[in-house]
Amino acid sequence: MEIKYKPEELTKLPRSVEFREGKVYIIDQLLLPREFKVIPLSTVEEVARAIKTLQVRGAPAIGATAAYGLALLAENSKAKTKEEFFDEFYKAFEILRNTRPTAVNLFWALNRIKNLVEEHREESLGEIKRLIVEEAHKIADEDVEANLRMGHYAAEILPEGNILTHCNAGSLATVHLGTVGAALRVMHKEGKLKLLWVDETRPVLQGARLSAWEYHYDGIPLKLISDNMAGFVMQQGMVDAIIVGADRIVANGDFANKIGTYSLAVLAKEHKIPFFTIAPLSTIDMSLKSGEEIPIEERPKEEVLTCGGCKIAPDVDVYNPAFDVTPHKYLTAIITDRGVVYPPFEKNLKKLFE
Amino acid sequence: MEIKYKPEELTKLPRSVEFREGKVYIIDQLLLPREFKVIPLSTVEEVARAIKTLQVRGAPAIGATAAYGLALLAENSKAKTKEEFFDEFYKAFEILRNTRPTAVNLFWALNRIKNLVEEHREESLGEIKRLIVEEAHKIADEDVEANLRMGHYAAEILPEGNILTHCNAGSLATVHLGTVGAALRVMHKEGKLKLLWVDETRPVLQGARLSAWEYHYDGIPLKLISDNMAGFVMQQGMVDAIIVGADRIVANGDFANKIGTYSLAVLAKEHKIPFFTIAPLSTIDMSLKSGEEIPIEERPKEEVLTCGGCKIAPDVDVYNPAFDVTPHKYLTAIITDRGVVYPPFEKNLKKLFE
Repeated sequence: MEIKYKPEELTKLPRSVEFREGKVYIIDQLLLPREFKVIPLSTVEEVARAIKTLQVRGAPAIGATAAYGLALLAENSKAKTKEEFFDEFYKAFEILRNTRPTAVNLFWALNRIKNLVEEHREESLGEIKRLIVEEAHKIADEDVEANLRMGHYAAEILPEGNILTHCNAGSLATVHLGTVGAALRVMHKEGKLKLLWVDETRPVLQGARLSAWEYHYDGIPLKLISDNMAGFVMQQGMVDAIIVGADRIVANGDFANKIGTYSLAVLAKEHKIPFFTIAPLSTIDMSLKSGEEIPIEERPKEEVLTCGGCKIAPDVDVYNPAFDVTPHKYLTAIITDRGVVYPPFEKNLKKLFE
Repeated sequence: MEIKYKPEELTKLPRSVEFREGKVYIIDQLLLPREFKVIPLSTVEEVARAIKTLQVRGAPAIGATAAYGLALLAENSKAKTKEEFFDEFYKAFEILRNTRPTAVNLFWALNRIKNLVEEHREESLGEIKRLIVEEAHKIADEDVEANLRMGHYAAEILPEGNILTHCNAGSLATVHLGTVGAALRVMHKEGKLKLLWVDETRPVLQGARLSAWEYHYDGIPLKLISDNMAGFVMQQGMVDAIIVGADRIVANGDFANKIGTYSLAVLAKEHKIPFFTIAPLSTIDMSLKSGEEIPIEERPKEEVLTCGGCKIAPDVDVYNPAFDVTPHKYLTAIITDRGVVYPPFEKNLKKLFE
């Protein structure tokens, strides 16, 4: 597979998170879709608050933001001694680690930098600081590079025509481009994407608020629908493929993703529409054998009782599973940054890690 | 089938529309779920406005309200001569007819009274007025009676356990009890309904705003979910049957209902869950051979771009089909006020009309 396009040829969006001149810059996702604004974060506490309040969200974007939080400390620290700096570093590490309880990429990115620091604790303070900043940039750059590769792989195998997606696995959820976002952008660049169907993705509306905004911003022709319209548009022959992200893919190819993904998979099967998930290798958890082992997070009832800030229902009981698990039998292929994986998934996923 | 319960044994709700002492009383559905209020309507214009603004909605409820609009005129008219009264009557007829463009029951109820008036135009003014009021009451009473019968039929054939429904085919959509509403209420009365899953039913949220409210009001145990959670709860084995209303059933058993119904039907099939629609005989349109002939109303984009009054998306393109068509092959049975119809539907529906 040949990388044909640079990120800036595929999107007009800046990176969701950047680090320059001693500040972390993020796209404030709480202001979207009303306002598109890049805001500076000047302290570790500000970075932590941005993660906690969901000004930045999406696992890869959170991971890179936290890493840049440590880079910010490294570049701005006034510590005179290594001991003093290590104190500040571990304090920052803890502050950043306690922002989101279940974001795997957050811990992964923070630990990667902590391990590096500990490996090099005999180096000079200046060198340690330099290494931290360099590693944070690496974490961000690697995410973009992985997305770019996945996008090109996807464009090679997805059919031309109308694509449907769910939730937001776009540029906003990652450092740049997105996973699904990269796939759609490469397809659009090559004239293969006729129309994008965007599921609004209740209850938190990542589709309506974020996907609709970012793909529209990049000029991709799209139509927003309520989640329950997806079956009808498939029945009418208006969907050629479905592509979604993944929160976790396990050893047999079952995967967890935003609630509603499973329904789409069943509908895709009924209409013989190919169904893809796309995620970097780091999303694959070979320690779990099947999707039944993935715990499903239940979220507060207020998310279902409200919509976009408005109360929509009386105060009744609610069920609010945040994710569902799609069995691998519904999947056409898993697209990763190391290539496309087809059934039998158990055997072929294992090969990726050999 | 034996009618075991009276309406007042099945619901604490009053009728959605009543006529007494020269006034039409309706439950103001625009105030729900925040406030439960019965409001009086004193003129034909007020009745027309209530229909137009959706203070009253649901085809059978609209039909009865319009009929009572004519009863209101009959009871309150100061006309001295029959000519004068007929002028007022036809004017009222036109005003009421122009409230909702596609509500079949509206035209049916108004025409039923107009035909009666025209058959009896030689009678005295007093007698004509009396006939109008009597006919309006008949229209309302017949709706309640049909619902009561359907509810009893349904409770005989639906499995005990957890039931899932979509949209609102409850008491609020009819004069009293509802179609689906009657089924659920008889089941609840008999201890057969463990838990009701209520789909919120985007974009207009009839499930969240109306079904959740009215079934909770009657003490039916329920959980509200976003539409895209229905597949997951079926996958988890938490749904024993699905029952929905119908806007139109055609000769082969295909039926149109609120958008999202078709997705539920496909999911039900995948999980081997019985799937029912319930509607009075007047909903069956034997003039159409198959569901492909049913026109699908597309509604304004604002419904999808907003939710419960809040803006939820940027101003992008939208697709907003209000209904979808479920092919009869997904249906376990059609429950009508004349009994339960099983496959083959084309043959067995025909028998109902013989």
